[in-house]
Amino acid sequence: MKNADTILLPRWLIPVADNDADSCGAVFEDHALVIRQGRIADVGPRSTVTAEWEAVESVTLEDHVLIPGLVNAHTHAAMTLLRGYADDMPLMEWLSEHIWPAEARWVSREFVAAGTELAILEMLRGGTTCFQDMYFFPDMVAARAEAAGMRAVVGMIVIEFPTVWAKDAGEYLEKGLETRDALRHSTLVSAAFAPHAPYTVNDKALEKIAMLAEELDCQVHMHVHETEHEISESSARFGMRPLERLDRLGLVSHRLGAVHMTHLLDAEIETVASRGVSVIHCPQSNLKLASGMCRVHDLITAGANVAIGTDGASSNNDLDMMAEMQTASLLAKGVSGDPSALDAANSLYAATLGGARALGLEEQIGSLETGKLADVVAIDLADACSWPVYHPLSQVVYGCAARQVSDAWIGGRRVLENGRPTQLDSSRVMSDARQWGLKIGAPSPSSDP
Amino acid sequence: MKNADTILLPRWLIPVADNDADSCGAVFEDHALVIRQGRIADVGPRSTVTAEWEAVESVTLEDHVLIPGLVNAHTHAAMTLLRGYADDMPLMEWLSEHIWPAEARWVSREFVAAGTELAILEMLRGGTTCFQDMYFFPDMVAARAEAAGMRAVVGMIVIEFPTVWAKDAGEYLEKGLETRDALRHSTLVSAAFAPHAPYTVNDKALEKIAMLAEELDCQVHMHVHETEHEISESSARFGMRPLERLDRLGLVSHRLGAVHMTHLLDAEIETVASRGVSVIHCPQSNLKLASGMCRVHDLITAGANVAIGTDGASSNNDLDMMAEMQTASLLAKGVSGDPSALDAANSLYAATLGGARALGLEEQIGSLETGKLADVVAIDLADACSWPVYHPLSQVVYGCAARQVSDAWIGGRRVLENGRPTQLDSSRVMSDARQWGLKIGAPSPSSDP
Repeated sequence: MKNADTILLPRWLIPVADNDADSCGAVFEDHALVIRQGRIADVGPRSTVTAEWEAVESVTLEDHVLIPGLVNAHTHAAMTLLRGYADDMPLMEWLSEHIWPAEARWVSREFVAAGTELAILEMLRGGTTCFQDMYFFPDMVAARAEAAGMRAVVGMIVIEFPTVWAKDAGEYLEKGLETRDALRHSTLVSAAFAPHAPYTVNDKALEKIAMLAEELDCQVHMHVHETEHEISESSARFGMRPLERLDRLGLVSHRLGAVHMTHLLDAEIETVASRGVSVIHCPQSNLKLASGMCRVHDLITAGANVAIGTDGASSNNDLDMMAEMQTASLLAKGVSGDPSALDAANSLYAATLGGARALGLEEQIGSLETGKLADVVAIDLADACSWPVYHPLSQVVYGCAARQVSDAWIGGRRVLENGRPTQLDSSRVMSDARQWGLKIGAPSPSSDP
Repeated sequence: MKNADTILLPRWLIPVADNDADSCGAVFEDHALVIRQGRIADVGPRSTVTAEWEAVESVTLEDHVLIPGLVNAHTHAAMTLLRGYADDMPLMEWLSEHIWPAEARWVSREFVAAGTELAILEMLRGGTTCFQDMYFFPDMVAARAEAAGMRAVVGMIVIEFPTVWAKDAGEYLEKGLETRDALRHSTLVSAAFAPHAPYTVNDKALEKIAMLAEELDCQVHMHVHETEHEISESSARFGMRPLERLDRLGLVSHRLGAVHMTHLLDAEIETVASRGVSVIHCPQSNLKLASGMCRVHDLITAGANVAIGTDGASSNNDLDMMAEMQTASLLAKGVSGDPSALDAANSLYAATLGGARALGLEEQIGSLETGKLADVVAIDLADACSWPVYHPLSQVVYGCAARQVSDAWIGGRRVLENGRPTQLDSSRVMSDARQWGLKIGAPSPSSDP
């Protein structure tokens, strides 16, 4: 017998093994997954696995399906503290009249600490085991993720206006790179360049980022083609659309995780696919801000990698990847007019291995395969909202709620047990967030009826 | 002091008082709601109310928001037993190759009993206190709703092909009317005519329904303009679009709850608004089947009443009105390109009072107003996914999950207490559904990896 740390015995297991559409939809019944030293040591039929492996702990998951931990490929975690702060208005009004002023007034190390913890609590409970962040104080985001046992790629944010984090592009980059250096031994957290958007970062800084990304072998995470306004402004200011400008600056490659990507021309879809750019699709945010709709079905048909992100809580208003995956599938069908578009298998792929690829982590996480890090999530399907079960994969995407996530392991450590985080003190996190909510401003009740 | 049965003391209260956009968005803090003899006896500031009323029971809801019970204006409840049975394909293929054959094989009184109970369990736990159904054996749907303490409008279904329920339009009508008669003393359940769709019911039966609806003062609940195919088929067969045909047959009035209504022309929107037709919008079903997108923003701007329904679990795949409300809002913004379209207040209105109006019950339910039946739902906002709270109404629509519904009262009776149904045995309902799932067919696992 070989020795392991944990054996998981779920009713169903969806490995999301491969980019190939046929095998990425495979579902196995009565399989087992073996965890040893933080990695997946074996996956196979229960009888074979239990005959070969002896584990310290064995977890039976009776009516559960095991999936790879969800990868939230785009968020601004700390913005949970501005959840629902302003709604029902367009991107630029929302940003410049509400969000940016609130951030200027409130963002601090402490704000980022409390907001990131709240975000991690919400994400863990909803099956997200890795998130890619773009926000100020990425060193603090990293510290909170480490403490919670959460995997993250923090953003070396660059934006051409001064904030409490940095005064100009040069200082943003410098502080970002310092953060990255400090993380070089972390097994959980790494850093990616995170220039905010084509309209908020100038050519000089973008060229420097393109060069550094190449030298340091590092991903670039950026809002691109979020709105029609961004595109027309770029055409007026630079004589070209944002994607073309980024291409001239050397940023359009497999390193780029381009967030949103609404309003794409056919030729742009070709470029994205042929250069290996990852499109990070945030369907709920795009709908809520009426930014436009991403042509996900056309992107996938063209061979592009698609990942899914929730965006920040102030434009979503939650960090629920289960719901985001469902919205992505439904919207792709609606937008393309094809009910087979972004089917359940492809949607789960985008939310796991597609996300891992966008973060440059596809060799490490994103699927339940021997040798990968053990980032694993169990979902209890014995719930009135997803019962009975004919096709577990279809239930996961179309008929599951975040609350059904019962357990999660990150790098083999059980960070969620029967719905309760093991590394985070939920009451303290909620109470800190309550204090911040009161400080930032309580809702003003209307007059009496 | 006046005597009451129950006083509810929530942190926030959203009455959804009126069709007027300004007042329908009102939110009150530290108010109280009084229940006496199944009705709302008073709503007002906590101090005033507690000085005037003495109740047998008083329920403090610390971080909760009280809203009117959600009205699921269109579902096929028993189809929970076919949840996820077939996905990722267009309406007609899905219906004729999968759903109709499965129904022909499996639908029976027992199927409808078990499926309806599972649906009620899911709906109650997600804050739905009233549903409008369209399915076979409406007498059994009514019996299960009564037993669970659930409010419902069951459908006197008519469809021009024989099923185990009835052999032809005449028998469908006759059995429907018998069901209606048997319900005449019920305080919870009533019946509406439910001709399936323009393409499955002929002129003769529709004319008869129009006449009976007038005579009996009864609503009509029907799928209308679900797909482009339905419209083009009608044009070819009848020389006119379905809505025009229904109009000639006398069905286009305030009695009509027209479900789906995608592909509407401007003139049709005018007709719908001026005749007082209710549009029952099922955004997740329309997206999933790629049926088309309803012009909700244009309908509301034109003054039409809009309600929200989940459709059946086999095309959704859940009966989650919280999620449906969110999708309705997000999609309306995306489709109209206007981020203020179907804002939080209007979305909650559609899911409550708009639904009540579509069912002809607007005098009885749909808002928290003195004199109305006490159909009330409490949602706990102290959850990582909707915390902190700046705008409770915005959180309810954009950042709340069904699991946050803690309590529900229907006609003053507490049917859900801390997330647990009081009138339904959840374990038995789940176990019955498991048996049906096994009988109908287990998922076929793929071959080994």
